[in-house]
Amino acid sequence: MKKEFSLERRNFFSLSSKLATGSLLFSGTVSSLSANEILTVPKWSRSLGRPTAVNLYGLPSPFENDVVKEIRLNNAPEGYVSSSIALTSANSPISKIRGSITPNGLFFERNHSGVPVIDPSQHKLLIHGLVTNNITLTMDKIKRFPTIEKCYFVECSGNTGISKKSPPEKTLDSMYGLMSSASWIGVKLSVLLEEAGIDLEKAKYVIAEGADGATMARSIPISRVMDDCMVAYMQNGEAIRPEQGYPLKLIVPGCEGNINIKWLRRLEVTDTPLFARDEVSKYSDLLANGKARQATLIMDVKSVITFPTAGDRLLEKGFYEIRGLAWSGRGKISKVDVSLDGGHNWITARLNTDSLSKAFVSFTFDWNWDGRAAVLLSRAMDEQGEVQPYFRQITKTRGFNSESHNNAIQAWAVTTKGEVHNVRV
Amino acid sequence: MKKEFSLERRNFFSLSSKLATGSLLFSGTVSSLSANEILTVPKWSRSLGRPTAVNLYGLPSPFENDVVKEIRLNNAPEGYVSSSIALTSANSPISKIRGSITPNGLFFERNHSGVPVIDPSQHKLLIHGLVTNNITLTMDKIKRFPTIEKCYFVECSGNTGISKKSPPEKTLDSMYGLMSSASWIGVKLSVLLEEAGIDLEKAKYVIAEGADGATMARSIPISRVMDDCMVAYMQNGEAIRPEQGYPLKLIVPGCEGNINIKWLRRLEVTDTPLFARDEVSKYSDLLANGKARQATLIMDVKSVITFPTAGDRLLEKGFYEIRGLAWSGRGKISKVDVSLDGGHNWITARLNTDSLSKAFVSFTFDWNWDGRAAVLLSRAMDEQGEVQPYFRQITKTRGFNSESHNNAIQAWAVTTKGEVHNVRV
Repeated sequence: MKKEFSLERRNFFSLSSKLATGSLLFSGTVSSLSANEILTVPKWSRSLGRPTAVNLYGLPSPFENDVVKEIRLNNAPEGYVSSSIALTSANSPISKIRGSITPNGLFFERNHSGVPVIDPSQHKLLIHGLVTNNITLTMDKIKRFPTIEKCYFVECSGNTGISKKSPPEKTLDSMYGLMSSASWIGVKLSVLLEEAGIDLEKAKYVIAEGADGATMARSIPISRVMDDCMVAYMQNGEAIRPEQGYPLKLIVPGCEGNINIKWLRRLEVTDTPLFARDEVSKYSDLLANGKARQATLIMDVKSVITFPTAGDRLLEKGFYEIRGLAWSGRGKISKVDVSLDGGHNWITARLNTDSLSKAFVSFTFDWNWDGRAAVLLSRAMDEQGEVQPYFRQITKTRGFNSESHNNAIQAWAVTTKGEVHNVRV
Repeated sequence: MKKEFSLERRNFFSLSSKLATGSLLFSGTVSSLSANEILTVPKWSRSLGRPTAVNLYGLPSPFENDVVKEIRLNNAPEGYVSSSIALTSANSPISKIRGSITPNGLFFERNHSGVPVIDPSQHKLLIHGLVTNNITLTMDKIKRFPTIEKCYFVECSGNTGISKKSPPEKTLDSMYGLMSSASWIGVKLSVLLEEAGIDLEKAKYVIAEGADGATMARSIPISRVMDDCMVAYMQNGEAIRPEQGYPLKLIVPGCEGNINIKWLRRLEVTDTPLFARDEVSKYSDLLANGKARQATLIMDVKSVITFPTAGDRLLEKGFYEIRGLAWSGRGKISKVDVSLDGGHNWITARLNTDSLSKAFVSFTFDWNWDGRAAVLLSRAMDEQGEVQPYFRQITKTRGFNSESHNNAIQAWAVTTKGEVHNVRV
């Protein structure tokens, strides 16, 4: 089997036409073409289109109206009230988008008191605590500082969830939609703290607080603060979106979504963590023995096949490109393997771009479906040598009390009829 | 001077707080902070914000309403009728956005018969000519092929323009707004042509034709076709925008904007170029001696400082980050130098991300403005060793008959009052 697939790959990506023209990818399935068809242009080629002045901020085609964020009205995690989740959470439509950048309009949402409308000319960032000078920075001033530009993913720790139900009857979008990736521009957090004169002898944590109604706050260990944290005000080239924290968002690369404080208002340098609600009562992992792991900040190495997934239907035998995403909170993705037989055999997939640290990388894998049942898995490895585990390995250590930090291998079963189901391996 | 600036850089980007805390970047200009201010939260922190269900396709903050594409009503190039340009062209607001990704809503527009509204279920790509099988591909079929994901810039050959007027009284956005950069997902053009059985012994060109009212068509040399051209259907993670060619756009990496055929409908493999209107009468460079350069496809190495630029006003002496973009149609950017004195001395700027081939890379440069007059330039070099020329070097060779393919060094003069003007060096 290994040989067959590596031959496939040579065909598509070599420049040798000799090899490729010999074997049509979709022989018999593409329609042949008459001279008449070449000369007959469609109706939209016979008139003027709309002028540019119509949309000075451009929007997707009306034919893409179904590509929207998904609110979880009827799909709340066990123990949650559906309507409250619907107000504070919207999933990115992972199955309908692609690649290492999430478009700003479809970036997932999770908030704890709705999205505040903040006037940037009135917004201020306060820095105080173990610093030489307590300072206040306006947005204009923040934009004067030296900037960095970095791609990072953001993933809610509750993304995917942990459920006893097997197989969990959920779709890709409902299970994996609480994650997105963007190119962020802003200021290194260390630069702002050095401006205030941070006392690095005493400082152990920085408490970051948002300006939303929930006053969301989290404690960030100082080593991480002085490493790669950033205060971002631009997302994929334009101002950060309201749902993402406009005008200012803290980025703690590779760490669980809710520590990336939105609507960032206050940074307090301290020698102790805050023990805030959302790092003690919530977002901590309750183990089987009744003890809880606090501050599981890092989102571990993970991947998921995004095509085909539960609900898809393969209409014919033949060529399909298996597609997916991989990411790690510990650095770059070094390798993604794919299995077609539920994990007995693994073959390395293509990474479609250079793997960036703590960012999405998309992978693809050439598959000729022979019509037999298959169980598709992906397994990512990162540059630290961490390997994505099976679900049973996670629950053996942690039990089922917590629904957070599930980075298990996901399985999609393809039946002989081409139906795709969510299964657990 | 060199020493001073490299010291600046060490301060911001080292982790050594000892160095940084010694010298405040904005000493005296940040407001100090009282305990009262820390406890007094703004009005938007005292209520619930809007629920997530309001915008399932997210939009920018209402406070960003002025960040839109600029139609060139009163700023048409010499010889053009303003109103017709306004219908077919809109500039990206380069001065208000940043970095290596252009947000989809603000990607520049240039079309020749308006933007057609195309139903993707009715759209077909025809491949014929010097091939074994003439074929028709639906969008569904095209999406079955193996994909690639790549960042590429697109720049109109008329971007920046060539004008005898010196200095040209234009802003950054009106001079440089006909360019943008995105992450594209699609199929290698060579894969589709191999599917049809391209005859590489006889093929010399591929004629690509759009489905717009203008039937825009261009001839692409076969070496380029079989190298890195792609047929893209996704842009920054979502379907290509209508203005960019929805549902299908040809990408000819590094080549002038209009050869990247939008609304791609037809590919004809031939042994001769088409000599289409838009590669003979238009988009060719008429030289001083009356002869014209045809098919100047490649957009040469270029850069521009995007802050500060004409119309900006520096309100005080002190620290400013000079910011800009660099790109080359011949590969990666290897280096960007900045001059503060009109080109007498040059200092190397920071590239903010890994430089990708034929894509934007943003650069930054730490500047302490001492209040004296300055003339700011940037000069990019690419991995082929090409160096961005002065305007006088371009016009010495080519004269002023053509307005296309100007990759000259741009100068912005800062007066002692902090006013910034467009000047020519």
